[in-house]
Amino acid sequence: MGVGARDTLRKMLARMAGKKEEDITSRDMATCKKLIIKSLSPFYSAISTDPVYGYPSCIKYIPKDTGLILSIEDTGYEPAGETGRERKSKFMSEWGVDKAKRAGADAVKLIIYYRKEVSSKIKEHQKKMAKKVGEECEKYDILYILEIMSYPLFEDEIKDNTNYARNLPEIVTDYTEEFSKPEYRVDILKIDFPADLKYCAEFAKGEFDGRKRKALYTIQDVKDLCRKISDISSVPWVILSGGSGIKEFLIKVKIATENGASGFLGGRPLWQGAISFYPDVDKMEEWLMTSGVENFKKLLKVSENATPWFSHKKFESFANIELEDGGESWHKNYQSFTPAPIRSGKNSSEQSTC
Amino acid sequence: MGVGARDTLRKMLARMAGKKEEDITSRDMATCKKLIIKSLSPFYSAISTDPVYGYPSCIKYIPKDTGLILSIEDTGYEPAGETGRERKSKFMSEWGVDKAKRAGADAVKLIIYYRKEVSSKIKEHQKKMAKKVGEECEKYDILYILEIMSYPLFEDEIKDNTNYARNLPEIVTDYTEEFSKPEYRVDILKIDFPADLKYCAEFAKGEFDGRKRKALYTIQDVKDLCRKISDISSVPWVILSGGSGIKEFLIKVKIATENGASGFLGGRPLWQGAISFYPDVDKMEEWLMTSGVENFKKLLKVSENATPWFSHKKFESFANIELEDGGESWHKNYQSFTPAPIRSGKNSSEQSTC
Repeated sequence: MGVGARDTLRKMLARMAGKKEEDITSRDMATCKKLIIKSLSPFYSAISTDPVYGYPSCIKYIPKDTGLILSIEDTGYEPAGETGRERKSKFMSEWGVDKAKRAGADAVKLIIYYRKEVSSKIKEHQKKMAKKVGEECEKYDILYILEIMSYPLFEDEIKDNTNYARNLPEIVTDYTEEFSKPEYRVDILKIDFPADLKYCAEFAKGEFDGRKRKALYTIQDVKDLCRKISDISSVPWVILSGGSGIKEFLIKVKIATENGASGFLGGRPLWQGAISFYPDVDKMEEWLMTSGVENFKKLLKVSENATPWFSHKKFESFANIELEDGGESWHKNYQSFTPAPIRSGKNSSEQSTC
Repeated sequence: MGVGARDTLRKMLARMAGKKEEDITSRDMATCKKLIIKSLSPFYSAISTDPVYGYPSCIKYIPKDTGLILSIEDTGYEPAGETGRERKSKFMSEWGVDKAKRAGADAVKLIIYYRKEVSSKIKEHQKKMAKKVGEECEKYDILYILEIMSYPLFEDEIKDNTNYARNLPEIVTDYTEEFSKPEYRVDILKIDFPADLKYCAEFAKGEFDGRKRKALYTIQDVKDLCRKISDISSVPWVILSGGSGIKEFLIKVKIATENGASGFLGGRPLWQGAISFYPDVDKMEEWLMTSGVENFKKLLKVSENATPWFSHKKFESFANIELEDGGESWHKNYQSFTPAPIRSGKNSSEQSTC
């Protein structure tokens, strides 16, 4: 479960409390994250949160069998490119993979916004960030979850979401191919659901929000798309929730996990119902402990066919998982945080003749 | 549960297989550790093992809610001092706290042999090792378990164990005072049970091994001793099993945990019954899954009054556990592995005037 939202959560709290965004304090943010994490972290296999509001207020409350995923990027993005519609991600300052590892995280998560059509400068910047975190995660021997978020970039996509929804399948399959390349050293890819279900023939009459839309694809098309992504992705993949409500997200999770996805790492649809009671924290807690838990149960049920990470084609079976160089000399050959310097002199020349 | 034995386990395997010690391979050692850890790690709150045979062969089999404790010292000791009876500990080469942290350990454990009466050179060496690991554990933000082991040092103690048993209460109370000093930065002290129960009036008729001995103390004396250690120790303490059989160890754990100890970190008494079937690994496994599990259940029962670490006087309550500097700037102020350099120039002079 993701409880990493920062800007988005601030907006939600401001709206509910009838305050300006700048009047939502860091204490308000922390209180809210603490409530969500205290109530729901015992249910989920891992909790993803941020090191600004989430970790300091919640670390006490995450059970030891729930994994801890810490985010590494700054919230939001910087508008970039000639049109100002390109999105440039940024690392959080005075924070990094090293600190996340030291603080006890089980995994690090980086979000990058990505469209391959942006200027090469921005595209390279985004790719470089993804690669950099891959290198750092290897250095610190920590699991790397890379989250790729697509966004409407072109004028026609912004004016009419139908155009964006039409492009989504190609956008997601394309970036999955790119970021599952070994050079990014990603352990788990977290990606957009590759279609907008609101434009699915079966739901286009307004199933989720009462608004009728043009049908762009069928459920079968979307299933095939997920299967295609499973073929393309060289690492286990999970879906993000984006702006979906719980009803829509449950269908997405079901379709994805029945077609090769290893699960979901979603946030808002799971707990946003609690926010509608803000600032009444007692009512928020009641919502989380009842409807919040119900959401978990529903998600568990729809994801029962998810592919365990160890059954992904990368590993095939848990029986194939082996420690690299796992013999009696493992502890000697295993690197420290700083890779051992290349040895000079006698030994190195001996080695080079081997 | 501890599965860290190296030299001792090698001796046990050699005896059972009717082989020389040098003919016990690292594969034999690993097989044995794997069997024990696979069978019993789901039951215990944490598993302590070594990085030579234990970690490489077992890491796959430790469940995610079982803590991982890695040892840091070389097995055994180097005989030292004028008499050759002093024991000098040594760090494992090409291994350290940094690698343990990187490999995902939840805690690091150092064993040092200690008698305050040894030559000052050896005494300082042992203290320095304990301090060094404290500093490293702080640097890498990992829990530090320091295990102190006493041993017979003087001729009269070696000739007649009665003399050693008589001295044990003072030895253990003394070293508990020393090593719970803040300068060692220990999180949990693992110590000898402070008396030899075989010399307890109630058990001196040969309760554990059929051999009659002189009574040196009563159970009440031993309870008082544990209470005294609880008063002295400024950190939570647990007991080690040493050479006890399971029957004796259960009584030790009951007395210690009813008088302030936070539990036990024992090894051999819990699983050594399996070794008597070596090299029949099927029978070993059967023993572990039945008698081994029974041992766990008995230990759980006798330690039901253990003081949880957070209820120790150092913390008093879980409600007092707070992240250091836990506000919105936590992620900025939290150190990386390499402490931030002391800033020079304007800021530092400003700070020094505060």
